[in-house]
Amino acid sequence: METHPILVVGSGPAGLEAARSVAELGHRVVLVERSLALGGAPIAENYAALTPDLDDAETAMNRMIEAVRTDPLVDIRTSTTVVATSGQAPELAVTMKGPKGEDSLTVGAVILCTGFQHFDPGRETQLYGYYEHDDVITLVDAERMLKAHQFVRPSTGQPPRRVCFIQCVGSRDRQIGNTWCSKVCCGIACKEAIEIRQLVPDCEVFVFYIDMRTYGFWEDQVYWRAQEEYKVSFIRGIVTEVTKRGDTVVVKGEDTTMGRPVEVPMDVVILSVGMEPSVGTREMAKLFDLPLEPHGYIATVGGPLNPVATARPGIFAAGAATGPADLEDSISMAGAAAVKAAGFLRKGLRKAG
Amino acid sequence: METHPILVVGSGPAGLEAARSVAELGHRVVLVERSLALGGAPIAENYAALTPDLDDAETAMNRMIEAVRTDPLVDIRTSTTVVATSGQAPELAVTMKGPKGEDSLTVGAVILCTGFQHFDPGRETQLYGYYEHDDVITLVDAERMLKAHQFVRPSTGQPPRRVCFIQCVGSRDRQIGNTWCSKVCCGIACKEAIEIRQLVPDCEVFVFYIDMRTYGFWEDQVYWRAQEEYKVSFIRGIVTEVTKRGDTVVVKGEDTTMGRPVEVPMDVVILSVGMEPSVGTREMAKLFDLPLEPHGYIATVGGPLNPVATARPGIFAAGAATGPADLEDSISMAGAAAVKAAGFLRKGLRKAG
Repeated sequence: METHPILVVGSGPAGLEAARSVAELGHRVVLVERSLALGGAPIAENYAALTPDLDDAETAMNRMIEAVRTDPLVDIRTSTTVVATSGQAPELAVTMKGPKGEDSLTVGAVILCTGFQHFDPGRETQLYGYYEHDDVITLVDAERMLKAHQFVRPSTGQPPRRVCFIQCVGSRDRQIGNTWCSKVCCGIACKEAIEIRQLVPDCEVFVFYIDMRTYGFWEDQVYWRAQEEYKVSFIRGIVTEVTKRGDTVVVKGEDTTMGRPVEVPMDVVILSVGMEPSVGTREMAKLFDLPLEPHGYIATVGGPLNPVATARPGIFAAGAATGPADLEDSISMAGAAAVKAAGFLRKGLRKAG
Repeated sequence: METHPILVVGSGPAGLEAARSVAELGHRVVLVERSLALGGAPIAENYAALTPDLDDAETAMNRMIEAVRTDPLVDIRTSTTVVATSGQAPELAVTMKGPKGEDSLTVGAVILCTGFQHFDPGRETQLYGYYEHDDVITLVDAERMLKAHQFVRPSTGQPPRRVCFIQCVGSRDRQIGNTWCSKVCCGIACKEAIEIRQLVPDCEVFVFYIDMRTYGFWEDQVYWRAQEEYKVSFIRGIVTEVTKRGDTVVVKGEDTTMGRPVEVPMDVVILSVGMEPSVGTREMAKLFDLPLEPHGYIATVGGPLNPVATARPGIFAAGAATGPADLEDSISMAGAAAVKAAGFLRKGLRKAG
């Protein structure tokens, strides 16, 4: 007995892996992506290299994209959004709106991989002067330059002599309402620091942090490597203000290890912006009638022993749609969600048969 | 055409989830566990509550155990070890030694879930006096007491008035050879600190740490909660010595935030011991001819975009056998590995057919 296809929403690392996994199990998949291009944030935001292995992000993502593109079990719908649903899995009707208008189909199960968006450092806080100073950029802006193999001071186009990262911008911050840690920014800052030192060997690089959260193997793979091999300076401190003096951006704060105020002129300041639930994540939660957890991501209901089940049977979520996630998390959760979705259909078949 | 069963080695959270996932996909599984009991570290080491939700560990694990016990597709072999292998997946012959002697069978794919062991704080370092002082215990010893709902000072049997945790014992430490961060110890220390304050409300609790790595939602779920709701004191500092003065254990070190030496008498000192590859992980790597990564865990070959593939086709690894892993990691990786193993068999069938 044939089952309905499994719907995967979102085509970042989690969505691509979920689609590939479902197809690997022999099920049909409909992969819906609101953008024109597959690949999610790593492609849309021009990631340079992956953490921790510094593999080229575009090449790695293209391998994943190619795998779903060439799989006859995967029906790819780009520039398409889900606009309505009715019924229950394994007989869930979804209406999609794409380039050729609206289309309806019945799906057996759903995997939501709608991911995150980066915190907007101009929102609710003028502290860091992101919109005031050209030389204050984000982790994401830095990726774009690193991908082009050219790291410059935006205001002059010249190589910088001194660059710093400010960690936890939009994370661990009750005032702006984001109480969570975004998990990946410490590792990514270390990775970008290494890349900047590779591209501009004369440039001094500093990282202002609260706690360096380079968990697991990231500890020596990127944190120690940045310190020892690339001479990046890590300063435990709180940045209280980023201002401009003449042509230079000045970072003021407190070095909490030394217990003294610091005031350092920088050519480029990189804000390590955290993760927030994406617009797509919030929209799909609403559309599929899924409760959110207290931080605003899609709530999973199984605790640490079942991280992909949502409150509705047959609807699963993977990756940063459920909270801050690194690449390994997103990929692993996608596989786990594929098993649950396929198992859900199989259970339905056994009952029906 | 019927395929051979999939072999899952180890029955901790990753192994149980791998077995359940494979069965959920309709494949037969042989689940091999060297101990008498299923459940891995959470059961063998008497974990009290899970991080971060403080659910009862035994109850949660028993649900997982029950799921595999009652699944007719899962063939459970306890008190059994794999002693020899030959050939290649999907026609891999394995010899197992169990209570009734040796038994051989052919398996189609393998998922290694052989996990970690805790760092022995007496090994190569007498710094913390684990074997010298009764009141110096580990995270694991603390779990055992917390599970019995009685937290006492071991030397007296009385409730302690002052307890501290020392983080990164056997982690982030080049001298003892463990350069990695063990990922979960910060979260677990926060969780245990909360449990101690619940059981012994008069007891002061301190945590000496280098960086608090309560990533993602653990930030507010356990770290802020420990500080704000349970008044646990977190001291960024390096402990240089644990000695005894009269009846009391004295912790000496440096508070690196205040920049001053600290010397605090404690009734109980809890060493937050990290993860190391287990004996089973090292033995199975050898037996299945799998290379280790530089830290001594089973090497995975796909980078962050494929965290479960090993160097040998058809052999996968999940959970702490591949490096420090939290429960979500172990469960998600197990699902991902089940997809890969089932997909591997399916590919073989298509080629054969």
